[in-house]
Amino acid sequence: MHTPSDSRPRVGVVGASGYTGLEVLRVLAGHPGVDPVWATSRSEAGGPTPVSGLAFTDRGYDALAEVDLVFLCLPHGAAVPWMEAARAAGVRVVDLTADHRPGSGRDAGVVYGMTELHGEAVAGADAVANPGCYPTGVILSLAPLRAAGLLDDARPIPVAAASGVTGAGRSPRRDLLFAEVHGDYRAYGLGNGHRHLLEMRAELPGLQLLFVPHLLPVPRGILETLTLPVVEGVDAARVRDVWREAYATSPVVDILAEGAPSLRDVVHTDRLVLSVHDNEGLRAPTLTVVAALDNLGKGAAGQAVQNMNLMLGLEAGEGLR
Amino acid sequence: MHTPSDSRPRVGVVGASGYTGLEVLRVLAGHPGVDPVWATSRSEAGGPTPVSGLAFTDRGYDALAEVDLVFLCLPHGAAVPWMEAARAAGVRVVDLTADHRPGSGRDAGVVYGMTELHGEAVAGADAVANPGCYPTGVILSLAPLRAAGLLDDARPIPVAAASGVTGAGRSPRRDLLFAEVHGDYRAYGLGNGHRHLLEMRAELPGLQLLFVPHLLPVPRGILETLTLPVVEGVDAARVRDVWREAYATSPVVDILAEGAPSLRDVVHTDRLVLSVHDNEGLRAPTLTVVAALDNLGKGAAGQAVQNMNLMLGLEAGEGLR
Amino acid sequence: MHTPSDSRPRVGVVGASGYTGLEVLRVLAGHPGVDPVWATSRSEAGGPTPVSGLAFTDRGYDALAEVDLVFLCLPHGAAVPWMEAARAAGVRVVDLTADHRPGSGRDAGVVYGMTELHGEAVAGADAVANPGCYPTGVILSLAPLRAAGLLDDARPIPVAAASGVTGAGRSPRRDLLFAEVHGDYRAYGLGNGHRHLLEMRAELPGLQLLFVPHLLPVPRGILETLTLPVVEGVDAARVRDVWREAYATSPVVDILAEGAPSLRDVVHTDRLVLSVHDNEGLRAPTLTVVAALDNLGKGAAGQAVQNMNLMLGLEAGEGLR
Amino acid sequence: MHTPSDSRPRVGVVGASGYTGLEVLRVLAGHPGVDPVWATSRSEAGGPTPVSGLAFTDRGYDALAEVDLVFLCLPHGAAVPWMEAARAAGVRVVDLTADHRPGSGRDAGVVYGMTELHGEAVAGADAVANPGCYPTGVILSLAPLRAAGLLDDARPIPVAAASGVTGAGRSPRRDLLFAEVHGDYRAYGLGNGHRHLLEMRAELPGLQLLFVPHLLPVPRGILETLTLPVVEGVDAARVRDVWREAYATSPVVDILAEGAPSLRDVVHTDRLVLSVHDNEGLRAPTLTVVAALDNLGKGAAGQAVQNMNLMLGLEAGEGLR
Repeated sequence: MHTPSDSRPRVGVVGASGYTGLEVLRVLAGHPGVDPVWATSRSEAGGPTPVSGLAFTDRGYDALAEVDLVFLCLPHGAAVPWMEAARAAGVRVVDLTADHRPGSGRDAGVVYGMTELHGEAVAGADAVANPGCYPTGVILSLAPLRAAGLLDDARPIPVAAASGVTGAGRSPRRDLLFAEVHGDYRAYGLGNGHRHLLEMRAELPGLQLLFVPHLLPVPRGILETLTLPVVEGVDAARVRDVWREAYATSPVVDILAEGAPSLRDVVHTDRLVLSVHDNEGLRAPTLTVVAALDNLGKGAAGQAVQNMNLMLGLEAGEGLR
Repeated sequence: MHTPSDSRPRVGVVGASGYTGLEVLRVLAGHPGVDPVWATSRSEAGGPTPVSGLAFTDRGYDALAEVDLVFLCLPHGAAVPWMEAARAAGVRVVDLTADHRPGSGRDAGVVYGMTELHGEAVAGADAVANPGCYPTGVILSLAPLRAAGLLDDARPIPVAAASGVTGAGRSPRRDLLFAEVHGDYRAYGLGNGHRHLLEMRAELPGLQLLFVPHLLPVPRGILETLTLPVVEGVDAARVRDVWREAYATSPVVDILAEGAPSLRDVVHTDRLVLSVHDNEGLRAPTLTVVAALDNLGKGAAGQAVQNMNLMLGLEAGEGLR
Repeated sequence: MHTPSDSRPRVGVVGASGYTGLEVLRVLAGHPGVDPVWATSRSEAGGPTPVSGLAFTDRGYDALAEVDLVFLCLPHGAAVPWMEAARAAGVRVVDLTADHRPGSGRDAGVVYGMTELHGEAVAGADAVANPGCYPTGVILSLAPLRAAGLLDDARPIPVAAASGVTGAGRSPRRDLLFAEVHGDYRAYGLGNGHRHLLEMRAELPGLQLLFVPHLLPVPRGILETLTLPVVEGVDAARVRDVWREAYATSPVVDILAEGAPSLRDVVHTDRLVLSVHDNEGLRAPTLTVVAALDNLGKGAAGQAVQNMNLMLGLEAGEGLR
Repeated sequence: MHTPSDSRPRVGVVGASGYTGLEVLRVLAGHPGVDPVWATSRSEAGGPTPVSGLAFTDRGYDALAEVDLVFLCLPHGAAVPWMEAARAAGVRVVDLTADHRPGSGRDAGVVYGMTELHGEAVAGADAVANPGCYPTGVILSLAPLRAAGLLDDARPIPVAAASGVTGAGRSPRRDLLFAEVHGDYRAYGLGNGHRHLLEMRAELPGLQLLFVPHLLPVPRGILETLTLPVVEGVDAARVRDVWREAYATSPVVDILAEGAPSLRDVVHTDRLVLSVHDNEGLRAPTLTVVAALDNLGKGAAGQAVQNMNLMLGLEAGEGLR
């Protein structure tokens, strides 16, 4: 049973009965350092949340007065007025929608919460835009390699990404019905125009990403297979070294010395697991990267709580799975 | 109930209780032009086959005397002596194993049965090596484009391929148990050394393939997403035109005018469905191809029966689904 | 490609883009004796149907003038005006909704289309109410045993039934989303008040059914496990004999001599497979029956076409899978 | 990282790479009160276990000297010599196999570890036979009702049970391959002779159980639907009251006031959730019970750790999920 305390920061979750909101509550339920004091849901008001003793409630902006930090887990587009209200009320915000991410046109004054890359800015931020699930794996794979000059930016970087269906949200849609998805697998967003590309390009200027997402018949998890054009002399071992240095202090990014991660290694966790592989038989040096994460973990709720930890001065990995 | 006839060619299936053999029998059960007269299986001898009235039997080479053509559906490696026995007995052979495919070192005198590309040779052949499931989608996507000079062979061609688990066969393995695969997804064969590459490279000399297979939590179906480096001036429309001309007479290869195929469009059929897409935001012209087929259909049994049709002088698409 | 003919009866399908309507079209696509000339769908008008060359169309009652028989595959409640319009137009009707089934209060003048039991009446009928999916397995299991006096009607007959999710229709609902159903299994309709009981009780007067349905994480198929109280001296062999006699001429009901059917044996077919088993260790003689069918096959579209065959004077099993 | 301590009891797990052993290690990994010091596996020796810092090892009886309590997670039949060796060494044993359960003929001197029913005996036991997964739900549903005289033992009690495939173990078998189980559902053990019946009958003498298990296409979870013949005047409310009293102190048995549990409510937990429902339209009073548990949780590892807690004098619910 959850018992509020005066000494712990208080947090609220807006739009808490979608897949993202439920997962934020699941992480918070196991987090010793904060008190989740309300969780809003219009459709499930009165029903139980994953936090023992806490019921969903249908609250408005007035609820902001009761918390130190709020998570926005609304449908894309609906976070804008909540962000304004929270900032006006002096409440810190972690926005899990796409509304204030790089490329949205509404990211002024909002820190992009890719925790491992912008931790210092996050720690001092009032408002954080939590990254998208697909961009998390791509950006954390590439950013340190780009910074270290390992990538050959004359060549494109094909990313074949596959996600479980919770990535598409919990609103009823015919194409997401069990009988439609079971036994199926498909590419979507063809043409290299997926909206997540804005966010990736903003963080990885100069790189030519070719991003092809696919829908997996599993509830959760993302696996991204990147074809990596590297400059002469760079091999998998060198990439691994750069990653290890970049993520030495991260509580959730793991680099495999051998083998590749699968979804089973990451679902229901907040980890991102990376592997990199040399390839035979190609003229220009080209590696393969595999990045695995839970779209609801490091791809959403886990990263949101990681950001919250920094914003509230808690231990970086506190409560993470 | 199956009723043999003197007027129809007689066929046998060796190793008929694996996934491939069972599927050959399913196609033959609906084929009006041939008589399946025996189907061997050591483990299921006496049990029913998908052909009404036909039971599995445990027969040796003597059974060859009763047929005009035989399908070899054995584990890889076991087809060599059967191939010799069949040829000695003057019986035509479609070998569904990898034992006589290009790159195997045992392909002398055996025609590679990629039906759409080598139909004339197949029609006159005594022995045909049926292509692998993954190579079928890759080779049929690329061969006509390469022949037409559309591909930029200085750049690699990354292929992210995903297959259902029947592609790994029906022998018990811990990693293929239901509880291991359910909810999972993984890349395998990393390093660009998958054995199917031998076959692809033999048919597509000069191209730099980078092949990364993945295991899907579905029983059947293959989806291959190819990143296609093309020469200046080539776009998706041009690729579609070349494909349409190349496959105008194929009973099973379909080219989509819009959208992309998904597994549901092809499983339990003998079709291969192709789509091609222009991409935004890349400096060198680069298209995306999606190829979908059933690994047991066009990727195995469907193609085997398509080859049989040509070898026996039947209609090209007879009995195909 | 579908080619209409003057010599074959013409049929239409109303509400053809739901799971039931799509399956009727799939069966009709392989049926040599009739011409499907239109298939209505508001949401998918213009799109392709499973019948080659036939597109969905948004038609009203005027379309009835073009057909000899119409299938109603609407949401429950919506078939009443179509039934009236069809009968006024002299068009035969197979209604796949619950609107005119026994117990509906609207079954006057409509024959209950449990084909094996009421074939003669079906053959002469203008309007047929196609049975529900769950009742099909229960009624065909029990009706001949009840008629032969084998059942002890003083004891209840518990039926534990499990169905794939297409049984719940194709309208978007949160509880039928892939991520909700995957890995789950649940009982529903507890309390013995499921609406299908009206239909079962009407056909099986005097029996005390205790019906508990469950939702399976599969797209299609029904398995029903019945606990059968029988009178002294009755055993499984006797039940098998009575079934065999009752269903000797049925093109789709199969009785197993040993073992029990599983979903895999029946999905994508129009069969109903029955098995019966003696039980150890009980004081009063009590058997177990397992009935397996595809909810979209014998449980809906297969049975509808079987009824159509009789109504139009075609061969009983024509076009069935 | 796991750090051994002198103050906590030390435990070992024999046969730890099967599904049951892995789950025992997962529970122990989150248990603050004991130290898992070794976990044996011949096939995975050297590989990582779910306990951070602990690798699988291939050890024999000598390892018993290092622990206070040992869990036996071997294939059925293999626990007998380990039980003897452990007792000779003065090490407490929780045997998760069927080898020493009631009805095995080897249960002399071994306490049956149905924790809620025999807690006192467990607390003083050297050796405990952990119950089977199916019997756990059936026995805990029925035992207090039988003791309170609520059941009409003249009538049989049909139990339709369904289990995920981990219940069948992790040894490779063709019928448990992903492609065989996906989309399927079947009854098995027909005839009322399932070996788990010995255990149920030993604990529930005088009741006529009719037990029909089914295999679900999910990795884990058991749902049991019982048809409950009760004496005149007994209804669902009365059953609920008896259960509540019986399980008032259990850390893991929950009684629902309304609705019924589904697999999702219990998988990856150590809970058993019960519901009971009145039924319309039957002549003799007959209720329906739904019992849900994780076959690897309360059905195996959870219960084993619950027993360990009592045997070692720890808090009853410590470490349970």
